[in-house]
Amino acid sequence: MRATLIHGPRDIRVADVPDPVIHKPSDAIVRVLASCVCGSDLHPYRGTVGETTEPRRIGHEFVGLVEDVGDEVSTVRRGQFVIAPFAVSDGTCANCVNGITTSCLQGASWGGEDADGFMVDGGQGEFVRVPWADGTLVATTEVPDDSLIAGLLTLSDVMCTGHHAAISAGVGKGKTVVVVGDGAVGLSAVLASHRLGAERVVVMSRHASRQAVASDFGATDIVAERGEEGVAAIKELFDGIGADCVLECVGTAESMRQAIDSTRPGGRVGYVGVPVGSEIPIRKLFGNNIAVGGGVAPARSYIEELLGDVLEGSIEPGKVFDSVMPLEQAPAAYKAMDERTAIKVLLRP
Amino acid sequence: MRATLIHGPRDIRVADVPDPVIHKPSDAIVRVLASCVCGSDLHPYRGTVGETTEPRRIGHEFVGLVEDVGDEVSTVRRGQFVIAPFAVSDGTCANCVNGITTSCLQGASWGGEDADGFMVDGGQGEFVRVPWADGTLVATTEVPDDSLIAGLLTLSDVMCTGHHAAISAGVGKGKTVVVVGDGAVGLSAVLASHRLGAERVVVMSRHASRQAVASDFGATDIVAERGEEGVAAIKELFDGIGADCVLECVGTAESMRQAIDSTRPGGRVGYVGVPVGSEIPIRKLFGNNIAVGGGVAPARSYIEELLGDVLEGSIEPGKVFDSVMPLEQAPAAYKAMDERTAIKVLLRP
Repeated sequence: MRATLIHGPRDIRVADVPDPVIHKPSDAIVRVLASCVCGSDLHPYRGTVGETTEPRRIGHEFVGLVEDVGDEVSTVRRGQFVIAPFAVSDGTCANCVNGITTSCLQGASWGGEDADGFMVDGGQGEFVRVPWADGTLVATTEVPDDSLIAGLLTLSDVMCTGHHAAISAGVGKGKTVVVVGDGAVGLSAVLASHRLGAERVVVMSRHASRQAVASDFGATDIVAERGEEGVAAIKELFDGIGADCVLECVGTAESMRQAIDSTRPGGRVGYVGVPVGSEIPIRKLFGNNIAVGGGVAPARSYIEELLGDVLEGSIEPGKVFDSVMPLEQAPAAYKAMDERTAIKVLLRP
Repeated sequence: MRATLIHGPRDIRVADVPDPVIHKPSDAIVRVLASCVCGSDLHPYRGTVGETTEPRRIGHEFVGLVEDVGDEVSTVRRGQFVIAPFAVSDGTCANCVNGITTSCLQGASWGGEDADGFMVDGGQGEFVRVPWADGTLVATTEVPDDSLIAGLLTLSDVMCTGHHAAISAGVGKGKTVVVVGDGAVGLSAVLASHRLGAERVVVMSRHASRQAVASDFGATDIVAERGEEGVAAIKELFDGIGADCVLECVGTAESMRQAIDSTRPGGRVGYVGVPVGSEIPIRKLFGNNIAVGGGVAPARSYIEELLGDVLEGSIEPGKVFDSVMPLEQAPAAYKAMDERTAIKVLLRP
């Protein structure tokens, strides 16, 4: 089969690799219908986090059809449409029971190794072996219409991650919200906040195309300024003290500072951007009673809650995809994301 | 009148100072019935936080009787018993309306200056001028029995601060809780967690007298180990993954590390210890979805909720006082707290 590998910074290639086979009776094999490139894939692509010492599979968001299942798999069956969250989880350990599937005691990452030392395929390929298929995959009752694929694919990661930012910041009915970041996760965080009943949702964005998606997703205000000017603009919107809930969807030191400074005393920052150089200034938080929560989103725990809204069309998170390419063009997809000429690229095997 | 002043590290003196007078129609004068020494008073006493450049008033916890009120004061009247939280707040600004009275836009500290530049008396004295008396003070309907004074005095700070740690960590029915710190705030955090319905409350303590108070306050388990051994003991108690809620009531780098490492993935740390050298390791929090909240407790917002329980005796937070001294012995009270021969000392003018 064909699959995407990263060989080093800015070196993405699509190559022939062995077809996956079932190693354990809890495995499934999924034929990928759609996958995509994540903002966090850009870290190894840019060489900013970790080091690529040898070629390895990449991609952690995909949806597809179940091709085969091991003998112990009971919740998904051949031919079903499934959504794979961006991490493997057994669904039964103490952390999974608590809903923190990303801390599964037997978990694994796509493109990494599973708990038994077997390689796990990356999502950007034609087929994927799925460890702990019962714990990991969420099946729909029917194979959905092709028009819904993009929206369902966002449940692999970005929509659940934006939702996690909102939940972590305590977004709910009547709350005031600021979203720092206008990438696919930031835009999903706008949609999630709107869905959760926020009264005001401000997005910080300087890009017309992203502002348009944000408005479509329920943003009530747009602030184009950054840094101290951005903070001043936010405070002016909210009684001079800042917003109840601030969603940090970037991960840099600048974006975290922006988020904390935009939060009112007693408010909460929900952060989901992979922290790259960001720090938490504890004395400032202490004096102002600003809480900080979030992290790597336990997407598996949110998919079922969000799935119905996507299937019935009451939310359309698939609009974050402004580009669709065949899998063979994965290198171009990374380039477009890196240069921000695309918000998010969907790949079709 | 007599009042306590700090002249420098380990130099506490009780001296004659001018009687306070009403400066503004929103002021009240309170005759102090009881005050006390706080763990945070030990920072200037030890010279660990800030610098004492000239003698200044000290003490921020007191209860007493209203001696006089300005013309605009409407919620308290002469002769009433009042509890003063550890910060002055107007009760009407945007932050007070949000319940974060410690971030009052016209707030002040006892022993500091008010928003108009007038000196505010410290709590460890015979009388105190109270700015924004309506916003700051909480009056009881009757003058309480003397046996309740100690418990009511804890509502100035430690009981509300322990409660804030618990609220910030999400303590509630059925939760598992670890309290790091066995000072008066840590013990109050045990009591608050028990009151909020926690299923298990572990206190980390190596002192028999403090362990006894903790057990009396509802601690179900005691862990005497610290550092990595302490973390291992906590994890063993809770499925190998840690507790739902961890209350950090010290403020050092070691105690914060202990708290974070004792928290399960998806759990919350509530911290109320004034941060001295503590840091928040964001990558560890991110990977484990551990939230951190808390800060300087908005005591004023909690007093009314806790007051009834103290008056009816269903909680007895006054047991944190294991020593009572006359105001004139304030220097000895500081020494006893500094050397940990007393948990908390009550001062009687």
